[in-house]
Amino acid sequence: MTALNELSLHEAAALTVTRQVKAEELVEACIARIEAREPTVKAFEVFDPDHARDQAKALDAGPVRGPLHGIPLGVKDIIDTADMATGWGSPIYAGHRPVRDAACVALCRAAGAVILGKTVTTEFAYFHPGKTVNPHNPAHTPGGSSMGSAAAVGDFMVPVAFGSQTAGSVIRPAAYCGTVGYKASHGDFSLDGVCGLSSSLDTLGCFVRDPHDLATMRAALLGDPDAPALSRPPRVGFYRTPHWDDAEPATRALLDATAMLLSERGARVEDATLGPAFDRLSEAQKTVMAFETARTRAHEYEAHRDQVSPPMAKLIEVGRATAYGAYREARQLAAAGRRALDELFGRFDLLLAPSAPGEAPEGLDATGDPLFNRMWTLLHVPCITLPIGAGPNGLPLGIQLIGAKGEDGKLIAGAVWAWDRLGTPEP
Amino acid sequence: MTALNELSLHEAAALTVTRQVKAEELVEACIARIEAREPTVKAFEVFDPDHARDQAKALDAGPVRGPLHGIPLGVKDIIDTADMATGWGSPIYAGHRPVRDAACVALCRAAGAVILGKTVTTEFAYFHPGKTVNPHNPAHTPGGSSMGSAAAVGDFMVPVAFGSQTAGSVIRPAAYCGTVGYKASHGDFSLDGVCGLSSSLDTLGCFVRDPHDLATMRAALLGDPDAPALSRPPRVGFYRTPHWDDAEPATRALLDATAMLLSERGARVEDATLGPAFDRLSEAQKTVMAFETARTRAHEYEAHRDQVSPPMAKLIEVGRATAYGAYREARQLAAAGRRALDELFGRFDLLLAPSAPGEAPEGLDATGDPLFNRMWTLLHVPCITLPIGAGPNGLPLGIQLIGAKGEDGKLIAGAVWAWDRLGTPEP
Repeated sequence: MTALNELSLHEAAALTVTRQVKAEELVEACIARIEAREPTVKAFEVFDPDHARDQAKALDAGPVRGPLHGIPLGVKDIIDTADMATGWGSPIYAGHRPVRDAACVALCRAAGAVILGKTVTTEFAYFHPGKTVNPHNPAHTPGGSSMGSAAAVGDFMVPVAFGSQTAGSVIRPAAYCGTVGYKASHGDFSLDGVCGLSSSLDTLGCFVRDPHDLATMRAALLGDPDAPALSRPPRVGFYRTPHWDDAEPATRALLDATAMLLSERGARVEDATLGPAFDRLSEAQKTVMAFETARTRAHEYEAHRDQVSPPMAKLIEVGRATAYGAYREARQLAAAGRRALDELFGRFDLLLAPSAPGEAPEGLDATGDPLFNRMWTLLHVPCITLPIGAGPNGLPLGIQLIGAKGEDGKLIAGAVWAWDRLGTPEP
Repeated sequence: MTALNELSLHEAAALTVTRQVKAEELVEACIARIEAREPTVKAFEVFDPDHARDQAKALDAGPVRGPLHGIPLGVKDIIDTADMATGWGSPIYAGHRPVRDAACVALCRAAGAVILGKTVTTEFAYFHPGKTVNPHNPAHTPGGSSMGSAAAVGDFMVPVAFGSQTAGSVIRPAAYCGTVGYKASHGDFSLDGVCGLSSSLDTLGCFVRDPHDLATMRAALLGDPDAPALSRPPRVGFYRTPHWDDAEPATRALLDATAMLLSERGARVEDATLGPAFDRLSEAQKTVMAFETARTRAHEYEAHRDQVSPPMAKLIEVGRATAYGAYREARQLAAAGRRALDELFGRFDLLLAPSAPGEAPEGLDATGDPLFNRMWTLLHVPCITLPIGAGPNGLPLGIQLIGAKGEDGKLIAGAVWAWDRLGTPEP
């Protein structure tokens, strides 16, 4: 039998919701894994096993609360929790205890989740790294900004963890750590109680180990029952993006092989092209992010500049130096891109594209490049990365599937269809 | 000479930025007004005159900081301030001191503003009223949810105050209290550090006494220099909205007279019509607001239900009972409405519509009806109300001007054009 901590979210929930397995048993299995591996992986900023046990015992003693009954959940440390400190990855807020739970935490608690701990984030979910390493090779970055969540799920410490994406902070670390990563349609999941960078971009997402789990998360957060199996194989647009030449050979080979395999399995796969304006969207994302972050994090820059990292200060300074007109133009380019993409999704159910340039880079001073994520975040569309390959160093490689805005249920169904046919990678 | 507290923001800033008037003198004039009138008006939740004096003295002792140098600012009490308690209008958070300033507060401080106090809000910026009364007649509501900010500006306590609008929480109280009210394009002003209800709707705005002031606020918050005078009279679409029959006779008469007067002054005024889908937008706004608020304020409902007011609990329960599909459909209707409106703004520079059904209603148990505001908030367009009339009880009446999304500078220029030609109301 699979160890309890290795069960995927929906497998575990099938046992806890029916009380075949107690919340406490599942939580103990995750605690044991964390205690064994945390000295190496360093995924958690706050981890209090006794508090987790107390939550599990209370759930076991009461009625079944919802679709996440007894499920251990990791929460990125930019997300407020009333019962645990929330430091935003910044020395300014080290040890700060919020007065309330963020919306996503409150909803998961109400659905029965056990908040197992706060996972490491880069400073304010930007680039300055935290302590987490890649669970597959501790000399490599786990990616960022949701580094602790990706590593914890990839290392079987928890079946699910929250992350957030402003550039590539869910999809990239998920690909690097070999998990399924999901960035929802912009605005679908409430960001109330989540430290923000850039409201036009900031999007909540999560890490799991099986795309079937994503429907459970949408049920808990939105009451969305919408993830029916596809009635026919999906129409897949293979979009190499303007950055294809920046993808490593192993990534390009994996994408080409995936397109062929999906086609062999019955999907209608065609090359998708998008106009020349799409070449400028990654730059537009940078403009929007800098301009908005300069406003959003003005307090820290004004009142605590000595405790703001150089990359963060630089981003704010670039944003302050960006003219409102340039920002407005970048937003207009994004709006035009959304219209073009809406049209493209008349012909395709989902797009296939790289998740990241390649394997997780060596070194812990940087978190890799969100080049293959920026445009999708700007375009507000839902994205899923599936871990289905490995690179030359034996580290995970993902493929990214992208859906139309607001069509998260359809994207999840397409990802499940692909997952069931592409299989899981070699362990 | 006009008393200092009666100067509009841009008039006062012209004196403080050039150091013809000290920050301390301006602040003292506002403090004196508040001390005289606050026992009646009850606009402030937190007011500490010595702390305001300290801020002003520090500004007088240093360099000119920016376009708001020395300007007293009221801040709605759902907006975080590091130096003052922020209670969100809820007993749950009474006396809570945030760890940082909201983005809008930090940016105004950086531009030289003096935070004069926290203004009364309804509970979580929804309907359950606070203590503020209408400064023109204390038996009447000032409107909500930004009740303290509207009353404080309308009563010459401060030249400018922040509000926020999810249904009609800026435009309606501004109209009731006889101030200029401005709701920005959705997403333009950062909501970081502002208690949220519904992220598809929540929008920051402000109250001032002259539309010229709005360009100064955009300069401080966005570095937006964009409010050039119009090169020709505006093309105005007179849109009676699907709710015209719900407007009181005095409101309908004021709108008709305004349309005629703008036309006489040189504007090209035509009736604007929008398709039948617009009849359903106010209901769609309610659906979105209930669904999202049920998520956003889940913590309070789950953990502090006995301290949540009956109207707030009801909204959350309605939102929980709303199916995801109905919510999705309401958002799709809004998206279609935005496209239709974008087309309409090819023919018009701005729309003219009612700000509220009529004068501020009598009584303090309710805050009036946001009927004439819901659709614009849902459509994400910028709105300005100008106080240019009075109703049968001698209370203020406003007219609402609406611009295309992202065209706030053009809307402000249009409002200034109208203001200069329509004149201020009888005092």
